Amino acid sequence: MNDNVQELLDQLGALKTGLHQHDFLLTWERTPDELRAVLLAAEILEQLHREKIDTSVFNSGLAVSNFRDQSTRTRFSFASAANLLGLGVADLDESKSQIAHGETVRETANMISFTAEVLGIRDDIFLGEGHKYMLEVAAAVEEGFREGVLPQRPAVVNLQCDLDHPTQSLADLMHLQQTFGSLDALRGKKIAMTWAYSPSYGKPLSVPQAIISLMTRFGMEVVLAHPEGYDLVPETLDNAREFAEQSGGSFTHVHDMAEAFADADVVYPKSWAPMHVMEQRSRLLRGGESAKLAELEKQCLENNKRHVDWECNEAMMAKTRGGAALYMHCLPADITGVSCEAGEVAASVFEKYRLDTYREAGHKPFVIAAMMLLTRFEHPAEVLRRLLNQ
Amino acid sequence: MNDNVQELLDQLGALKTGLHQHDFLLTWERTPDELRAVLLAAEILEQLHREKIDTSVFNSGLAVSNFRDQSTRTRFSFASAANLLGLGVADLDESKSQIAHGETVRETANMISFTAEVLGIRDDIFLGEGHKYMLEVAAAVEEGFREGVLPQRPAVVNLQCDLDHPTQSLADLMHLQQTFGSLDALRGKKIAMTWAYSPSYGKPLSVPQAIISLMTRFGMEVVLAHPEGYDLVPETLDNAREFAEQSGGSFTHVHDMAEAFADADVVYPKSWAPMHVMEQRSRLLRGGESAKLAELEKQCLENNKRHVDWECNEAMMAKTRGGAALYMHCLPADITGVSCEAGEVAASVFEKYRLDTYREAGHKPFVIAAMMLLTRFEHPAEVLRRLLNQ
Amino acid sequence: MNDNVQELLDQLGALKTGLHQHDFLLTWERTPDELRAVLLAAEILEQLHREKIDTSVFNSGLAVSNFRDQSTRTRFSFASAANLLGLGVADLDESKSQIAHGETVRETANMISFTAEVLGIRDDIFLGEGHKYMLEVAAAVEEGFREGVLPQRPAVVNLQCDLDHPTQSLADLMHLQQTFGSLDALRGKKIAMTWAYSPSYGKPLSVPQAIISLMTRFGMEVVLAHPEGYDLVPETLDNAREFAEQSGGSFTHVHDMAEAFADADVVYPKSWAPMHVMEQRSRLLRGGESAKLAELEKQCLENNKRHVDWECNEAMMAKTRGGAALYMHCLPADITGVSCEAGEVAASVFEKYRLDTYREAGHKPFVIAAMMLLTRFEHPAEVLRRLLNQ
Repeated sequence: MNDNVQELLDQLGALKTGLHQHDFLLTWERTPDELRAVLLAAEILEQLHREKIDTSVFNSGLAVSNFRDQSTRTRFSFASAANLLGLGVADLDESKSQIAHGETVRETANMISFTAEVLGIRDDIFLGEGHKYMLEVAAAVEEGFREGVLPQRPAVVNLQCDLDHPTQSLADLMHLQQTFGSLDALRGKKIAMTWAYSPSYGKPLSVPQAIISLMTRFGMEVVLAHPEGYDLVPETLDNAREFAEQSGGSFTHVHDMAEAFADADVVYPKSWAPMHVMEQRSRLLRGGESAKLAELEKQCLENNKRHVDWECNEAMMAKTRGGAALYMHCLPADITGVSCEAGEVAASVFEKYRLDTYREAGHKPFVIAAMMLLTRFEHPAEVLRRLLNQ
Repeated sequence: MNDNVQELLDQLGALKTGLHQHDFLLTWERTPDELRAVLLAAEILEQLHREKIDTSVFNSGLAVSNFRDQSTRTRFSFASAANLLGLGVADLDESKSQIAHGETVRETANMISFTAEVLGIRDDIFLGEGHKYMLEVAAAVEEGFREGVLPQRPAVVNLQCDLDHPTQSLADLMHLQQTFGSLDALRGKKIAMTWAYSPSYGKPLSVPQAIISLMTRFGMEVVLAHPEGYDLVPETLDNAREFAEQSGGSFTHVHDMAEAFADADVVYPKSWAPMHVMEQRSRLLRGGESAKLAELEKQCLENNKRHVDWECNEAMMAKTRGGAALYMHCLPADITGVSCEAGEVAASVFEKYRLDTYREAGHKPFVIAAMMLLTRFEHPAEVLRRLLNQ
Repeated sequence: MNDNVQELLDQLGALKTGLHQHDFLLTWERTPDELRAVLLAAEILEQLHREKIDTSVFNSGLAVSNFRDQSTRTRFSFASAANLLGLGVADLDESKSQIAHGETVRETANMISFTAEVLGIRDDIFLGEGHKYMLEVAAAVEEGFREGVLPQRPAVVNLQCDLDHPTQSLADLMHLQQTFGSLDALRGKKIAMTWAYSPSYGKPLSVPQAIISLMTRFGMEVVLAHPEGYDLVPETLDNAREFAEQSGGSFTHVHDMAEAFADADVVYPKSWAPMHVMEQRSRLLRGGESAKLAELEKQCLENNKRHVDWECNEAMMAKTRGGAALYMHCLPADITGVSCEAGEVAASVFEKYRLDTYREAGHKPFVIAAMMLLTRFEHPAEVLRRLLNQ
């Protein structure tokens, strides 16, 4: 093992990143080297963990989580990441009904950070809010550190916001890298990020937005497909177009699932709510207008039903390259006949890729740990190298 | 101290157990050597803890708890055990109303286990469900480990199910061992596991079932006593009969508290709900039939009242060997005149043994830690021995 | 740095304290040397933390928290303190509606303490209860330790009771010490602990009681000011009078905010509920009389409104020494025009001292850690000194 880890450490050591003393909020703000560094550090940590090598690089310190939406897998990924690096976990359990603003955010951010190394935040319910909130928290702890209030500058790590879901998309990228052999091998591979039917409503947009913004950076042929009206935040489509051009890949936007699946090497069928619905919902939630919210939900579910044929089934999979595309999902998937009557994916398709989706998810704790490491240490490769010589 | 610990380590090292990479679910599945190994490892850990010797045998890793029923003392015992061995604790807080089945269990089990060494589960509300659920979780992580999804195979530890409560009964056995001097000294000692009156309803059957299944294995004369109708799950009575025969002890089943107490060396008076009530209750809970549940509770409380004389009081204690049997309870006890008008035990009896019941409970963190150690390390005695030479 | 730390360690080592194997409940029970020892240990820990020196003096062990009232900043301070010293945190989440008494307290205190080093308790809702409850818990673990139930004697640390808030007031004292240069420099300085208007009701009395009881011990000129009727618990005024006499400071009690602010070096304007209201409220809460509680709240808020001019604004600050008194607050403050229409402090005043109040709060994790260290180690200075030589 050590030879391989040594090589990865050399690669990591050679990368220049601006992550130290900063946050990890949106992948599109980070340079290619910074993304590569996350993947490398995550892979090294995975290998050290498998070899039962102690990776507690912190003596003490807290990793504070703030989940403004329910979470199980991200919560455990965050706890695992913190534990791997030797940090204690403390959860900030806000009152869920009110979103704190202004002085409260600035103050609370400092009050929880006297020994915090990382603040992991999930805030994906209100469109136009989540990322803004993270910026507010980051500015607060930046001020606190600069003014000597905080002995260290905790890094804000985005555990899902209204725009991006970087810990998911980078775990997905790691999964692609391992499946196809390398990052370079992704060049020219077609990935279909498509909407899929679900009998639920209000699912965030962050996953599809994250996928099209990230995979276009590695020369992939990215196709986004959804029924008319199920639009994403335009900024993320701009990302995709721009990155595709830069990387020599492509970005296509269609409204036909079959078209997206045709000759695809990878498919990522997943439900989400239309952006305009999320905007309306955010307004109504803020106003506490429950009657109108119920009406909106009813409308949306009815509207969804018109697209019940957007299911990833055997027929659809047959259209992919050699009928053998890699199926991906961030989990939990709505599986037809298992978790619902009709859903995102047929049971037989899901079962074939079930363990693959578990493996995909398995990278997340290490991606988060990598973000913690890179934001908190100036020379992360050296810090990791010391672990080998203990 | 070290001499004693060295001797215990030698004894532990000499035992062959099949616990490594497995679960600890039911004591009656485990060999006598495996049970002895738990007791030895627990005793060693107790002594090391008293001597303030560092017992953190894990570099990192999570101990995940899943309490499907309320718990304070088991929760703290589990947290203490994890902390003793160097594991972080993460609690899986499921929605309490719905029991997850099928894909969800399989998936969640893996999602929380990427860095988990132990999954401690309490699921004792639904008769016929708890143990089944633990098997389902164990199969899921077994598959995950075999298929390379999980870097390690977390051990499922039963923190109380519908059938057994092994962490309690083994702590109880340790208490008996220390009170009477040794496991061998328990041979021929009479223990009365009896029902006792309580003004509450729906208490699980796992403690009496655990006690008759375990104490019969060590040559004790085990008497089970309860009013007509307060039956336990038949499988556990079969255990008791069979083990009594094998160990040269005995198992008697009576319906008279005084008969059970006569010449007893140990008494364990504790309330529980009749099996058929638990079955009905499980059905009604699943169906959400609250009116019928209220009716069932009313009937049960009335029925209980007919047996208000099943109280462990001074007169009853006078019937035991020399009037001086050891009183045991898993706590909290319903104490007449203290926690209720009429309950399981008279205040004067409880007060006499109060500190003993605390000592009894005090073994639980170490029993749980011993289970963690034996399921996760191939050579636990060597792992512990290394702690002495640090 | 080391020179300074060495000097502080020498000072700490020279102090005789009776804190080992005891609790930290009320500052007025502790000797001046014990208070000085807390300040010194906190300062040393702060410096070691800033230098990233490992301060985990415990191999393992739990710090158990029991918050009988909501808390964010104290919760995080406690978690930070535990983490700094190498303890795991476990929270005892009681049902909030019922206050446990008698056997339950005695039993639970032991059940959660088998590996506990510290029990941190916040219980400030019921006047006449909080401190009593802490004494009950302390007596229970004292008995448990004496009788061999507990391998160690966990220290009870008061995280706010009905009488005192020592972790706050000692953090405040540390802030004063650093602002004015030394404890000696506080001699003769005037501090105004004054009531201030807030559109809320039922705020505990513990902060003003803590401040007048503590600052009078260091030769400060302490003035307590509040509208007629907003009385504190008399015992704490007795403390203040007595300590002022002993220390050569003074204690004055007035009913005029401006009089208190005149030439003050420090101002601490903060809302609280009158003692008689807290007594009434405690009775009604215990009786579950929600209609009367609502009526009481209404009356109180109306009564508060008559004193809306008790605001710490620019005009009021202009009356202080050189118009430049240090403004203090335990946070969160009710800021006029920010968190409410009219509150304790004008926005412009608060903003000027905002970072100072953060710094004030920043001492709390280290004060709590110091209390843990001093109660659990016989020779804390030696324990800390060993950290430097690692």
